[in-house]
Amino acid sequence: MGNVFNFSAGPAGLPKAVMEKAQKELVDWNNLGTSVMEISHRSKEFIQVAEEAEQDLRDLLNIPDNYKVLFCQGGARAQFAAVPLNLLGAAKKATYVDAGYWAESAIDEASKYCQVDTFVAKTEIDGKAAVINASDWKIDPEAAYVHFCPNETIDGIEISELPQTDKPIVADMSSNILSREIDVAKYGVIYAGAQKNIGPAGICIAIVRDDLLELANELLPSFMSYKVLAEKDSMFNTPPTFAWYLSGLVFKWLKEQGGVAAMESVNKQKAELLYQQIDNSDFYVNNVHAQNRSRMNVPFQLAKPELDAVFLEQAAERGLVSLKGHRAVGGMRASIYNAMPLEGVQALVEFMQEFETANA
Amino acid sequence: MGNVFNFSAGPAGLPKAVMEKAQKELVDWNNLGTSVMEISHRSKEFIQVAEEAEQDLRDLLNIPDNYKVLFCQGGARAQFAAVPLNLLGAAKKATYVDAGYWAESAIDEASKYCQVDTFVAKTEIDGKAAVINASDWKIDPEAAYVHFCPNETIDGIEISELPQTDKPIVADMSSNILSREIDVAKYGVIYAGAQKNIGPAGICIAIVRDDLLELANELLPSFMSYKVLAEKDSMFNTPPTFAWYLSGLVFKWLKEQGGVAAMESVNKQKAELLYQQIDNSDFYVNNVHAQNRSRMNVPFQLAKPELDAVFLEQAAERGLVSLKGHRAVGGMRASIYNAMPLEGVQALVEFMQEFETANA
Repeated sequence: MGNVFNFSAGPAGLPKAVMEKAQKELVDWNNLGTSVMEISHRSKEFIQVAEEAEQDLRDLLNIPDNYKVLFCQGGARAQFAAVPLNLLGAAKKATYVDAGYWAESAIDEASKYCQVDTFVAKTEIDGKAAVINASDWKIDPEAAYVHFCPNETIDGIEISELPQTDKPIVADMSSNILSREIDVAKYGVIYAGAQKNIGPAGICIAIVRDDLLELANELLPSFMSYKVLAEKDSMFNTPPTFAWYLSGLVFKWLKEQGGVAAMESVNKQKAELLYQQIDNSDFYVNNVHAQNRSRMNVPFQLAKPELDAVFLEQAAERGLVSLKGHRAVGGMRASIYNAMPLEGVQALVEFMQEFETANA
Repeated sequence: MGNVFNFSAGPAGLPKAVMEKAQKELVDWNNLGTSVMEISHRSKEFIQVAEEAEQDLRDLLNIPDNYKVLFCQGGARAQFAAVPLNLLGAAKKATYVDAGYWAESAIDEASKYCQVDTFVAKTEIDGKAAVINASDWKIDPEAAYVHFCPNETIDGIEISELPQTDKPIVADMSSNILSREIDVAKYGVIYAGAQKNIGPAGICIAIVRDDLLELANELLPSFMSYKVLAEKDSMFNTPPTFAWYLSGLVFKWLKEQGGVAAMESVNKQKAELLYQQIDNSDFYVNNVHAQNRSRMNVPFQLAKPELDAVFLEQAAERGLVSLKGHRAVGGMRASIYNAMPLEGVQALVEFMQEFETANA
């Protein structure tokens, strides 16, 4: 098939240059005569890959020295359990801010391990979905930490504020890590499944402040222990080496693009272009208030939902693929992570205009 | 680099034909214009990959219908915790047969969750490492299950017998699954990290008998629950899609080779060739008794260990790579999993003869 712009919510498209490099060296990496996935994780060659990936991520996010960078398995869902099991210590409570589907999934899992103090932050402004201002979030004084999900991929909601608290802030950044500048020092733990903005499914990054490594529950499976992973350089068990390597290639690619600030600038442009197209027409609808619209995941509906299937079909014919909305929301969803070039969004907007003209 | 025979213990070499196919379709899979790792795990295209992989594995191992095949994350080390957390039920004890390094690692982790009744099965016969006959293994009557590791990659020990018990038998087959015929119906749970005989690191297969799905501890992280994984077709969380796809390619390749019986026949040949070379010379030593020599991992020492480095260097010059022994054992180790062709072992044996002639 010809050139394709892939709007998949995850596993998502990876930068084309990265995939082409991976393809070129898939069977003969580093002149070893084997793939990078066919060598020991303890070989000097792989350890260099691992260390460079960590350093590049540290550079990209300006991660302070008192934070460990861990490469975990099991994705964000594993972290939904790992977070309470690693962080509760003697505490019995944690506050979870609920602004959408993934925050709620984290709450479900955490409820197995502690009393979850849920603050429902979902609201409406002018009939549009929005999030209550962080200054109004209520945080339980006995909470061990405050968990939130700053980008909700299904709801299309993004939160640019932080909980106002001196408790450790835990953020599920699976879908917006590296898409905008953040101050890591304000967080206790940041975690992110790779398959949206980092690399392929099967690896998950956790960035953990040193003082939080000593609180683990004794029933925590060792391979999920932040302390064990930190002590073993994320090689307590055999890590998903190919996913680690590919993530490392993405980090290098991000640096070549100018780093996170440069990505944020393009991401803003992409999102504005698409939301403008939606807002400038009665043919397309997005139900999220401007203050909380996600830059990464743009769900939209057709005013004539009976045309959904035709829209998706014609879009795919143009190489605009994986635009179908999540089954919980319907309609369309354009996920426009770092790997989506501006031209992809331009092509989508152009198609949306033509489709409207033909079908309005 | 030219043709290479890769003796890595894991992550190990994959079949060349599989890697070449993966390379060819890495950026444009199934004519979608994207990689298989860049599409939703819930897309019809990926679900077909997932289902075919499961069916092919069922065919290869003749897995009865009352067993679930689960594609897990976290590798065998995750299973070290998942097994007791999924299987103990109301029981407080489990019997673990100890015949080497990996059995002991499983015991360490299980000790967090239950009283481990360890049966030390290691012995010596004629000064060589061996395993006590299974008929003499003592199994605690109160044990919920009996765990053993039929192939010890570091010790080079393989056990072809099964525990003699009516309790569920749990086997860590990470390093010998699909290398020899087995009767799945005799097991409660078989699990195997992929990175030796299945695919790349980052995915782990668990084959679980239906009646064992209902015993989970309530503190078990959901993504590790056999029941949850079974109910969700291993898609409770985003699975490691690329690893799943590659494992599926390996399963198809195994079928093309004639299935497990055919692989077992070649594996026997490979192992016999190598052990004969070792035994026919005083220059090379293997310390495992014939009855328990592993067909998959052949550790051997030089009578003159000061030549280890030269041996490894000259072997690598011939394209015989990753022969260095585990740090706990020293010397050399040739891992000769399914993906290693007979010619690879022939080339190694030829080199060993020449090296002996030059250095004896």
